[in-house]
Amino acid sequence: MIKPSQGRSRVVIEEITPQIDAGRHPVCRILGDTVNVTAAIFGDGHDHVAARLLYRPDRETAWRFTPMIATVNDLWSAAFTVDQMGPWHYAILGWVDHFDTWVSDLRKRLLAQPIPVESQSLASRVRGSSFALADPPPGSPKNTDGLHSGAQPASHDIPLALRTGVILLDQASARAKGADAKSLSETSRFLTALADRDLSFYDFPLDSEIIELVAKYPDLSFATQSEPQLSVWVDRERAQFSAWYEMFPRSASTVPGQHGTFADVEAQLPEIAAMGFDILYLPPIHPIGRAFRKGKNNSVTPEPGEVGSPWAIGDRSAISAKAAAHKDDNGGHKSILPALGTFADFERLGAACKTQNMELALDIAFQCSPDHPWVTEHPSWFVIRPDGSIQYAENPPKKYQDIYPLNFESPDWQGLWDELYSVFEFWIEHGVKVFRVDNPHTKAFSFWEWCLGTLRSKYPDTIFLAEAFTRPHVMQWLAKTGYTQSYTYFTWRTSKWELTTYMEQLTTPPVSEFFRPNFWPNTPDILHKSLQDGGRPAFMLRLILAATLTSNYGIYGPAYELCENAPAKPAPGKTESEEYLDSEKYEIRQRSRNAAGSLVPLITQLNAIRRANPALHSNNSLRFHPTDNPQLICYSKTTEDKSNAILVVVNLDPAYGQTGWVDIDLVSLGLVPGESFVVDDLLNGAQYAWSDHRNYVALRPGTLPAHIFKIVRQA
Amino acid sequence: MIKPSQGRSRVVIEEITPQIDAGRHPVCRILGDTVNVTAAIFGDGHDHVAARLLYRPDRETAWRFTPMIATVNDLWSAAFTVDQMGPWHYAILGWVDHFDTWVSDLRKRLLAQPIPVESQSLASRVRGSSFALADPPPGSPKNTDGLHSGAQPASHDIPLALRTGVILLDQASARAKGADAKSLSETSRFLTALADRDLSFYDFPLDSEIIELVAKYPDLSFATQSEPQLSVWVDRERAQFSAWYEMFPRSASTVPGQHGTFADVEAQLPEIAAMGFDILYLPPIHPIGRAFRKGKNNSVTPEPGEVGSPWAIGDRSAISAKAAAHKDDNGGHKSILPALGTFADFERLGAACKTQNMELALDIAFQCSPDHPWVTEHPSWFVIRPDGSIQYAENPPKKYQDIYPLNFESPDWQGLWDELYSVFEFWIEHGVKVFRVDNPHTKAFSFWEWCLGTLRSKYPDTIFLAEAFTRPHVMQWLAKTGYTQSYTYFTWRTSKWELTTYMEQLTTPPVSEFFRPNFWPNTPDILHKSLQDGGRPAFMLRLILAATLTSNYGIYGPAYELCENAPAKPAPGKTESEEYLDSEKYEIRQRSRNAAGSLVPLITQLNAIRRANPALHSNNSLRFHPTDNPQLICYSKTTEDKSNAILVVVNLDPAYGQTGWVDIDLVSLGLVPGESFVVDDLLNGAQYAWSDHRNYVALRPGTLPAHIFKIVRQA
Repeated sequence: MIKPSQGRSRVVIEEITPQIDAGRHPVCRILGDTVNVTAAIFGDGHDHVAARLLYRPDRETAWRFTPMIATVNDLWSAAFTVDQMGPWHYAILGWVDHFDTWVSDLRKRLLAQPIPVESQSLASRVRGSSFALADPPPGSPKNTDGLHSGAQPASHDIPLALRTGVILLDQASARAKGADAKSLSETSRFLTALADRDLSFYDFPLDSEIIELVAKYPDLSFATQSEPQLSVWVDRERAQFSAWYEMFPRSASTVPGQHGTFADVEAQLPEIAAMGFDILYLPPIHPIGRAFRKGKNNSVTPEPGEVGSPWAIGDRSAISAKAAAHKDDNGGHKSILPALGTFADFERLGAACKTQNMELALDIAFQCSPDHPWVTEHPSWFVIRPDGSIQYAENPPKKYQDIYPLNFESPDWQGLWDELYSVFEFWIEHGVKVFRVDNPHTKAFSFWEWCLGTLRSKYPDTIFLAEAFTRPHVMQWLAKTGYTQSYTYFTWRTSKWELTTYMEQLTTPPVSEFFRPNFWPNTPDILHKSLQDGGRPAFMLRLILAATLTSNYGIYGPAYELCENAPAKPAPGKTESEEYLDSEKYEIRQRSRNAAGSLVPLITQLNAIRRANPALHSNNSLRFHPTDNPQLICYSKTTEDKSNAILVVVNLDPAYGQTGWVDIDLVSLGLVPGESFVVDDLLNGAQYAWSDHRNYVALRPGTLPAHIFKIVRQA
Repeated sequence: MIKPSQGRSRVVIEEITPQIDAGRHPVCRILGDTVNVTAAIFGDGHDHVAARLLYRPDRETAWRFTPMIATVNDLWSAAFTVDQMGPWHYAILGWVDHFDTWVSDLRKRLLAQPIPVESQSLASRVRGSSFALADPPPGSPKNTDGLHSGAQPASHDIPLALRTGVILLDQASARAKGADAKSLSETSRFLTALADRDLSFYDFPLDSEIIELVAKYPDLSFATQSEPQLSVWVDRERAQFSAWYEMFPRSASTVPGQHGTFADVEAQLPEIAAMGFDILYLPPIHPIGRAFRKGKNNSVTPEPGEVGSPWAIGDRSAISAKAAAHKDDNGGHKSILPALGTFADFERLGAACKTQNMELALDIAFQCSPDHPWVTEHPSWFVIRPDGSIQYAENPPKKYQDIYPLNFESPDWQGLWDELYSVFEFWIEHGVKVFRVDNPHTKAFSFWEWCLGTLRSKYPDTIFLAEAFTRPHVMQWLAKTGYTQSYTYFTWRTSKWELTTYMEQLTTPPVSEFFRPNFWPNTPDILHKSLQDGGRPAFMLRLILAATLTSNYGIYGPAYELCENAPAKPAPGKTESEEYLDSEKYEIRQRSRNAAGSLVPLITQLNAIRRANPALHSNNSLRFHPTDNPQLICYSKTTEDKSNAILVVVNLDPAYGQTGWVDIDLVSLGLVPGESFVVDDLLNGAQYAWSDHRNYVALRPGTLPAHIFKIVRQA
């Protein structure tokens, strides 16, 4: 019910946007973004209402504020700019504005007076009368507001209204300080004098500066503050605009058959940086379990010496007490597989990335091989079966005996949470700011909300990519719990209809307010049928889609550059597989990304186009344009001011050339219908003069799979 | 962040429907309604989830509950029936269901075994073995679930899984009592014996009764309960289905020129009841102020003896101390205008209404004439102007000196609230359950939320109709604060497009969840242009629309029956007026509702159709059907089971006959496309055999302005 303190609060504030789940979760923004806030704000009766948008970074206690502006139908809006990273809060304060009501009513009273035969400005009347002020106060009348003035018998109403104004000005003066207080009380005295004289006048007696001055000191005694407080989470730009490159460091050696090292990766950095990637992401770098180790092609009967899967984390025997780099270096999530190098090597790699304007991203997979130190040190973190053994991962009848999942219902759940949290913090202390988290949807959501909330508050420049390929509610909830970016269904969305509907969902509220998609045309786990069947032309078109549909994208290389498309043998009972043949997950695979037919040049070109065109740095301007061919998809992105506008047309058919007409919404691109314009094809350097919304395109798989046009306005 | 107690809660509950403003306001239902609740419910990983819908009337402390059923895509649903009036609450409880996960995994394990050459049911194997139970426990195997059975070497996995089942059954048994506990522990012993025997089998070893029995005793230790608790407000049926008749009692006398009385109204009751109305609504019945009393046609210079406006409430001089019926009978809101009768007369009228199956509704207008006792007793409840006078109602330059508005920013706001509340309670104690509240949007919303919340909790059978004709947010907020019904924009929605879009807004969520429209084709304040110009045919069609578009409607009579359509002289500067000429608001107007051309027969017919057809008792089934003529509007309403289906076609043109084709969505009416059906015209008794979705109609203003078809299915 009503709190007694709210008894005299007459303003209602509702329908605030943006908000996610009634404020349960923050909306996401990037440093420097503007947050546009709207709400319905109204009071009872005819009194005028005023409102402020209140906002502050979490670390500040006092609200900053800006006035809200009424638009239509009781809706109001205002905006603020987020100038630091981390959590921010916002709310709305609304109140009945008696002074503004008084101003409006007085204007109407003055206007309603009979029109005088001979007009005369009040200023001259006042100055010519016995009422004189040496220096007219700021509130002295000006004949500028379109109200007629003149000399007629005074109505009793107007002096009375002036005296009400005197009370309101005196109250405002009492709330103000210094020169403002003085101006307000002088104006009050001026109105008193005006009322005393009982003069007839038609001009509104106060100028706009005084009205604005009163508005600076509103009476907030009965103001309503919206509840609950809403939040924005502010990340750095890379959270929204990033190009990821995934590679297995153990494949990085140039010596045939030799296990790659961090130093080998370091040697490749200039090449990777030259392609234009921002983030170099490595699968888990920890010791790999020996028990039930997987062999090549996921074999359960490996040959001796096989390297196993990096996701089977933990080997107590890998690190001897003598070799341990630090107290937690016991073969688990805070250890490095010795074959990859030392902590010093790792930190050198991180530093080398920075010199190439890249960042190193680690894969955090919270699961344990049977040899992980937690298994012996914290058996209560696992499910123990009735025979005393630890429950391995299972999806009956499938068994993953090399992996023990963690038990988030453990009686020692707090110990488990603390340890998992400390893994992130450990690597942050070793210079890592970007994490790709493996299968987060198989760990408790409440853990993520606490863990990511705590980490991101303490280290607001961290980025967490959720590797969840699961149902929509689950993926979205992970974003709500604090994941900065998420993998998506892009891999499986190949038709125009699928891409269009999916993108529309991702780029409009509510999803766009909290979920940042990251598009991967391939991963070590997923070689989609369209790539298997479509070969190099399919790799080209899927790359172009990923790099231009969303501002975050990534590839797993050099499998992608080399258009590797041989699938693994289907599992028993299945007709096809999305796994790679000779998957790098289970073996070392050395190859040069610059082999004949490599996509390195296209990738380099795409990343350069992305960097040069701010329209491609975010997603919310995405707009689809109709085409008359279901194999041709056309879309655009623009900056908010439309100074940069990119129009993309992609042929979705990897086998055949396609032609058709695109029907462009010119206004959305900042163009004026009827005027001609030029489109520069950033992929092939061609330039076309277009003059209307309908234009013809012809695209050929493999050679000209797409246009990426930059719109050039005519001078 | 996360409450420590929630550390092991792994289930998320979100997107609960219905809910209004994240639970800030209740949704509305009628006694006996079903509340369908849906939500997204999911956990991490692959474990199965289970959920209950919790619900209870406010006066009960323990939750009732019913299981929720998974539909698609992590959405779940369940329903409950509201079997008492007043506030109810609901929430959702979700948890990881380890037993259900175990059942599902064990089924998969059994299915994944190699198929035996020779099948044999486990039951016979068990009975033929040394393991024998005199009476097989409820969990003994049955060969009914389609799983194959046989004799093959046992895998270690299955006995181990059985032992996990034993633990889960023992835990369930410990949570159960009596016979249930015994059954569960017997089943546990059966599974132990089965595991001990290490038999090979293929049937699922428990039958569905045992699985359901375990589900009765879930482990809720780590369950998640949705927050905040949501609410439903349950009213009696009249809140949703009512026909109102407004009349001025002072015009009710049959003696020419004589002030009407409650007794005169009583004499008219049989006639009004015969028309089929449920609610007889009287404008304010209190003493009328003398200061600034309005004369005929809103004159500010009345003749002596004029009766004034009933909304200028309060006259201290009207009730002498000797004549006062009770301590508060001092000429204000708890007094009756002596010319209308006594409290005894009033109560007799209320009782007479009941015998006619009608209810008496009062008009509560919280405003005071200068003669109201509150003006002298509680000057702080009003705004005092700088000259010491009380601020009268104003909308500059208009002045309403006969009315003082109340000041909800009064320092004595609590005293004011208590007194206003007590006015309602006073009349409730005098038998009134239905109130029409005048201009509620000019009183503080927080007052209404408190006042209506308190009143409706104490008197759940009260009904409050908000007379607010203002902006959409304000009208909707009044409904959220507790108004049972609301006036609408119907009066000003005359075209097909206007009616369609407005009705679609009113009959779909969120608005339909909390806002109950009441359609009035006229009121004493509003004689719409379409009635002024269209005359009797317009009165007919607007009546038909009001009575069939919404389940609550009303008319102001006998002005409506008599098609009174002469407007008042326009105000200065205006070209037209929506006021009545010789408005009954300012004078006594005696006339017979049965004059020639009266709409009494049509009204009687419409109310009878409404009562006989449950499809017309609510709004949410409303559906529009296309027509090829913009003057023909076609819509239908059905009961939930479609056993009653009404199809209405109205000619919106009061001047000309209109013909056209209507294109009916047959399925929405419960009809099978292709089959023929009969439509009974309830207005003119005609019957038509229709056989397809497209049908021809011809309607003539004044004689056949509409069809109201009842759909008759063919045997």
